[in-house]
Amino acid sequence: MRKFLPLILDAERRGITVLKLNVGDPDLSPPPAFLKAVKRYKGPQVPYAPSPGFQEHVSAWLTYYRTLGISLKPGELIPTVGCAEAIMYAMMAVTDPGDEVLVFEPFYPSYKSFAKMIGVNLRPVTLSLKNNYALPPTKDILARITPKTKAIAVVNPGNPTGTVLTAPERARIAEIAKKKNLFIIADETYRDIIFSGKPTTMLSDGSVLDRVIVVDSASKRFSLPGARIGCVISRNTDVMGAILRFCQARLSAGTLEQFGLIPLLKNHRAYVRMAAGRYKKRHDVAVQELKKIPGVIVKPAQGAFYLTVGLPVESSEDFTAFMLSDFSEKGKTVAVAPMPGFYWTPGLGRSDVRIAFVLNEGKMREAMRLLARGLAAYAQR
Amino acid sequence: MRKFLPLILDAERRGITVLKLNVGDPDLSPPPAFLKAVKRYKGPQVPYAPSPGFQEHVSAWLTYYRTLGISLKPGELIPTVGCAEAIMYAMMAVTDPGDEVLVFEPFYPSYKSFAKMIGVNLRPVTLSLKNNYALPPTKDILARITPKTKAIAVVNPGNPTGTVLTAPERARIAEIAKKKNLFIIADETYRDIIFSGKPTTMLSDGSVLDRVIVVDSASKRFSLPGARIGCVISRNTDVMGAILRFCQARLSAGTLEQFGLIPLLKNHRAYVRMAAGRYKKRHDVAVQELKKIPGVIVKPAQGAFYLTVGLPVESSEDFTAFMLSDFSEKGKTVAVAPMPGFYWTPGLGRSDVRIAFVLNEGKMREAMRLLARGLAAYAQR
Repeated sequence: MRKFLPLILDAERRGITVLKLNVGDPDLSPPPAFLKAVKRYKGPQVPYAPSPGFQEHVSAWLTYYRTLGISLKPGELIPTVGCAEAIMYAMMAVTDPGDEVLVFEPFYPSYKSFAKMIGVNLRPVTLSLKNNYALPPTKDILARITPKTKAIAVVNPGNPTGTVLTAPERARIAEIAKKKNLFIIADETYRDIIFSGKPTTMLSDGSVLDRVIVVDSASKRFSLPGARIGCVISRNTDVMGAILRFCQARLSAGTLEQFGLIPLLKNHRAYVRMAAGRYKKRHDVAVQELKKIPGVIVKPAQGAFYLTVGLPVESSEDFTAFMLSDFSEKGKTVAVAPMPGFYWTPGLGRSDVRIAFVLNEGKMREAMRLLARGLAAYAQR
Repeated sequence: MRKFLPLILDAERRGITVLKLNVGDPDLSPPPAFLKAVKRYKGPQVPYAPSPGFQEHVSAWLTYYRTLGISLKPGELIPTVGCAEAIMYAMMAVTDPGDEVLVFEPFYPSYKSFAKMIGVNLRPVTLSLKNNYALPPTKDILARITPKTKAIAVVNPGNPTGTVLTAPERARIAEIAKKKNLFIIADETYRDIIFSGKPTTMLSDGSVLDRVIVVDSASKRFSLPGARIGCVISRNTDVMGAILRFCQARLSAGTLEQFGLIPLLKNHRAYVRMAAGRYKKRHDVAVQELKKIPGVIVKPAQGAFYLTVGLPVESSEDFTAFMLSDFSEKGKTVAVAPMPGFYWTPGLGRSDVRIAFVLNEGKMREAMRLLARGLAAYAQR
């Protein structure tokens, strides 16, 4: 995705307004309680937080998890520097260099980077847009697992797919983990951003209590990506022991933000309901407009704030570049994220793009219409 | 060090005041400009910082480095989540699993953890307290280097040693790096906390421009460990390219703290001069008192805020436990850090402890006197 940033900057230098649907940086304001709490911070010192987190902060996460029916002890949850650190430590805790982690592609690209950083290989199970990214039959998943596979990673709700795993799908993942003796790294960053039903977590499955490692974040739930606070959760004491040692090496997560997040975690419902509602409306606008465009494949998403779209083009990367470099209408264009970057297997997702719902409904509609005109212009170029 | 925390907590539960000289968490208040700048932060969004840092923040670091006579371009410095992240990424950038990094022991223990996390082995060159941790002859250092050695790590000023490398020592490290084709990971977290002379940096050595990776931090310089902002610097574009990719995977360092640090980095001198002066006075008190204790080996330090001390005991770990569990005078005792944890080689530093200058002069004196009484009681137990 990063390679298109220069094209965006270049378009802006030429005076073009770029509607940026390419990154998942929420435009919503976070709950005001966050900056209020930070600004109430007395000081004068700004000491290290304890490596396992400030007690009050951990306790606020536990309060949040109780609303999901999950009762955790303090050592079972450690705050991290965003979900990113949680993902890396979870992978490190259950693998050695040369081991493998099963992923469902398309998936959040940082997993690739972390895998490379720690010498782990990803084994992709490929999902398809046409099938709305449903899991394939269990036997097809089992076929991808080797003796070196140590964990299955699932991002649910999915980034970039916007799909939410069904209860049977979650149960199948648990079955596979038990059958093949795997850990489950469940990335539930977008848990509360769902368009219907109640938020779920792999922590609810009692049959895999000691296999599940949940990674979570305050970034998307509270529109606070710059706070860099996430957490990692497991009831497996060996896993948490290893992760605590990693956390002790890096000392601590941010002190001010741990305090700032306490009121949000203790009382999250109204905000996440509002946020999910807004993303749903934007989603609906996007789907409605996209369905009007000839040749576009679009399936409704169930959560997160992304939609993947199949376009009538051979190369979504080339089309994305075209939109930024060669197209504009009334001084405006749209930036989207080409999907090949979300796959491990080369050559997949070539016609697809991801759009993020980070602009309001009016702008989403405008962006989708610009996309339609851009596709027409691209076809005639 | 962590294994003594339960003993500290237990002593405190018994009503004993523990003078804690065991951790390097500064007691000084940071410059008030930090929290002022954070509290001026407008919001409402708290977005991701760019992975290479906010431009104004990077520019403030560059201003700081210009006061050392070092002119850096923006891409040559990336803010990190504390020095910890900088150390890990520097090591990752120049090694593959199975490679080695040369370290001078005793050294900052997080290096051990990071090495284990990324599958790298440390090759220690052992320094001695009796020799005030001077570097051994070059041939002895060269003898420790193998074809798998990719870098030399130096912590200067030293934690836990408090020693500052001399200009000839720095030149020798550069020579060794050139001769053996190694990178130099120069951890200069304590650069400005020196008791005489001017702060130095390995970045000044033009002969190893493309070999030096400096890791730095705001934590100790500005007494802001909870801000979790450090940086990594290199003029080697391949190294910085690799590190930027790691930084992109983890997305960003804290947004609020990057803004908060701008005024401090732009105008650091008065504060660091004050802080270094205070640590110097505490150091002098500690040395003065320690010299009175029979059997204690103490050499003056030149910087940082640590002193390593040889005690007339067989096991500093046992003595540290004794001080916390079996000794008190007028309801008080002292916690120190046994030195074995700062070595890679098992069995070294067994009689030694590290004390951190994190209490004021009066309390330092009191702590040293308690240490003297504790030693006497320990000898007679």
